[in-house]
Amino acid sequence: MVRLKGFQKLTSIDEALQTFLNAVQIKKPKMVATSLDLALNRVLAEDVIAKEDLPRFDRSAVDGYAVRARDTFGASQFKPKVLRVTEEREAGEGKAKQVWTGNPIPNGADAVVMLENTKRNGDKIEVWAPVTPAENVSKKGEDIAKGEIAVKAGTRLKPQHLGLVAALGFSKVKVFEPPKVAILATGNELVSISEELGEGQFFEVNRLVLSAMCRDLGAEAVDLGIAKDNVAEIASKLRDGFATDVIITTGGTSVGLSDLVPEAVNTLGKPGVIVHGVAMRPAMPTALAVVVGKPIIILSGNPVAAMIGFEVFARPLICRTLGMVQQEFRPIVSAKVTRKVATTLGRKTFVRVRVFQKNGEFFAEPVSAKGSGMISTVTKANGYVIVPENREGLVEGETVAVYLFGYVEMNGSNV
Amino acid sequence: MVRLKGFQKLTSIDEALQTFLNAVQIKKPKMVATSLDLALNRVLAEDVIAKEDLPRFDRSAVDGYAVRARDTFGASQFKPKVLRVTEEREAGEGKAKQVWTGNPIPNGADAVVMLENTKRNGDKIEVWAPVTPAENVSKKGEDIAKGEIAVKAGTRLKPQHLGLVAALGFSKVKVFEPPKVAILATGNELVSISEELGEGQFFEVNRLVLSAMCRDLGAEAVDLGIAKDNVAEIASKLRDGFATDVIITTGGTSVGLSDLVPEAVNTLGKPGVIVHGVAMRPAMPTALAVVVGKPIIILSGNPVAAMIGFEVFARPLICRTLGMVQQEFRPIVSAKVTRKVATTLGRKTFVRVRVFQKNGEFFAEPVSAKGSGMISTVTKANGYVIVPENREGLVEGETVAVYLFGYVEMNGSNV
Repeated sequence: MVRLKGFQKLTSIDEALQTFLNAVQIKKPKMVATSLDLALNRVLAEDVIAKEDLPRFDRSAVDGYAVRARDTFGASQFKPKVLRVTEEREAGEGKAKQVWTGNPIPNGADAVVMLENTKRNGDKIEVWAPVTPAENVSKKGEDIAKGEIAVKAGTRLKPQHLGLVAALGFSKVKVFEPPKVAILATGNELVSISEELGEGQFFEVNRLVLSAMCRDLGAEAVDLGIAKDNVAEIASKLRDGFATDVIITTGGTSVGLSDLVPEAVNTLGKPGVIVHGVAMRPAMPTALAVVVGKPIIILSGNPVAAMIGFEVFARPLICRTLGMVQQEFRPIVSAKVTRKVATTLGRKTFVRVRVFQKNGEFFAEPVSAKGSGMISTVTKANGYVIVPENREGLVEGETVAVYLFGYVEMNGSNV
Repeated sequence: MVRLKGFQKLTSIDEALQTFLNAVQIKKPKMVATSLDLALNRVLAEDVIAKEDLPRFDRSAVDGYAVRARDTFGASQFKPKVLRVTEEREAGEGKAKQVWTGNPIPNGADAVVMLENTKRNGDKIEVWAPVTPAENVSKKGEDIAKGEIAVKAGTRLKPQHLGLVAALGFSKVKVFEPPKVAILATGNELVSISEELGEGQFFEVNRLVLSAMCRDLGAEAVDLGIAKDNVAEIASKLRDGFATDVIITTGGTSVGLSDLVPEAVNTLGKPGVIVHGVAMRPAMPTALAVVVGKPIIILSGNPVAAMIGFEVFARPLICRTLGMVQQEFRPIVSAKVTRKVATTLGRKTFVRVRVFQKNGEFFAEPVSAKGSGMISTVTKANGYVIVPENREGLVEGETVAVYLFGYVEMNGSNV
């Protein structure tokens, strides 16, 4: 095909990613101890092992009376069993001891009758419903047993993990230090947003967008600045990024004469560029390189293509450099496509759509995108639909899965 | 029903939430100007309006030659059109001027031929394919026109919004100050994780979990400490929270004698508790209160019930106090249920499940949960399935939507 003469072959996304991940050396990140309130969304570096049983003792799961279950057998509202309320630490035959949720089960008792199923008369209670042994009792070690792994290394710590770790009596955990991702923009026409625009120039925004995407994942972004379209300058700035874990570049990766990033990367070491040209749209000119084990992701300079390229290639790599052993998903909604969209056979296409809600149903309106340089398409859109290589588009009215990268506007009917 | 004697009536989730949101007064948060790199995930306080067109000039969307489209009509690889390459600022009839992606379209030209569709011979080029007028040109104002709203107030700023704002030449935006959420735990048996455990006591974890959930949403958490089961003490600590935007309590909201939070809240002002007892499981004893316009969410002391109650009632309220006009979704995966689960008719049930992947398919394994006090159920689980009121459970093998609150473990076949 004439229009692809710059790429001898387009690699599929899956193959490109697999080749790349296999070629990079991901070093184990450093650990640091941190207090639980600062550990939210960090990645756990060492298994948390229960140092004792949780609960620490058999405890009541409800408010009520601890009893011997067999003393309640046959009880009903019409034929209640009567038990004597005790204040002692024991509660044997014929006795009931009042307990609140969480209280220890007294010796002699083996179940708890819920308060609602009793009636108190002085120092006696009527029991209106039977309980079976262990009913309404949280047994010692039932939540987590001593020696069990409570939270596995490689877990991104969400609120519930912090809660479990705290319940076990730990006030600190070991987490991984965040990886560093260096970002270099290239292009003669680019100006930093803090500067004045000259004729024919425009503001460079990819470093801001991609560093925000890195921070959303929990990585630290390092700014390598803007390089002119010059092999030596690009190579020199890339070298500044070698102390980091991942390098990302934007621009200079098409088939034009000024597309010099792959060339600059290849001057830095072996194996250099291992994938150039991916069967996807946008972001076809994406290149993936490895230099002495260090991953370099070479993205298009078009902001939309850069974002999609990051999503597909940088996100899974960065999750690994974070030390994660888990997959993160974007929110997905099922929505009906509002109009036909044509895509190209042989390209996995990321169609940007605006999801909105109407009468409780979700709709996905394709955002017309003339070029992947139109950054407003990713702000007017709040998600994308992936059209596989073997389809030529989307049909009006078809139901698709939309991967949300933004939010959906509230409408009256929905809270 | 005997077991519900404490609740005269259970309110449905939808009705409870609507009643609550209608009764609270949400005050507009304060604004603050912030630089773009610090604005990620903050909520925009004022519309960002384009102060000029984007692009600022007609520019090339590709690398190639700017030409007059009609000079290329009829061109093919076998019958190329030949044009003269010019270095001038103009490119009229019979001329072609080399341009890189983003370069201004020179006067006289109205389209760009991609580099791949040309062959250079000295100061001439062969054009191998025709272009139509405006082809490969990003027109001035096509991305965003001057005066257009680029990003609406109430938007949570994701990387792409920052990119668009930067492309428009703004280096700061006005965002809302985060709302404050005060959290009070209640219960005689609770001990702070920094303290020593006595007999029959356990560590209080709800403040940590709920404050982490608040921070995940972008709100600030204020710790009101732990109150004993005592109306006066609870009321006094609640008063400390009145300077905040939302108050959340845990514990003391069932039908036991020690369930004193609703009583304490009602001493503080009108209307007090407006919902007590919700047709859901877990979190049935949740109560919702408003005191002089201030929202108070009274959650169960069981950590799992507290999390689900937060999810259902606090999350939509906090999004409003953040100033958001958008809905946030949790990631959802479709998965097959691995075994039958029974639920109670008339209760919307939140079944915790562990989603895992096998041979490319997702499965949801229900995590057995004896009581909502078992915090490990929410760490062993990574999501929940909502079983509606009119169903009695889930059937083995049925496909369900799982709302993920954690991550899914990676498996070999998936990257």
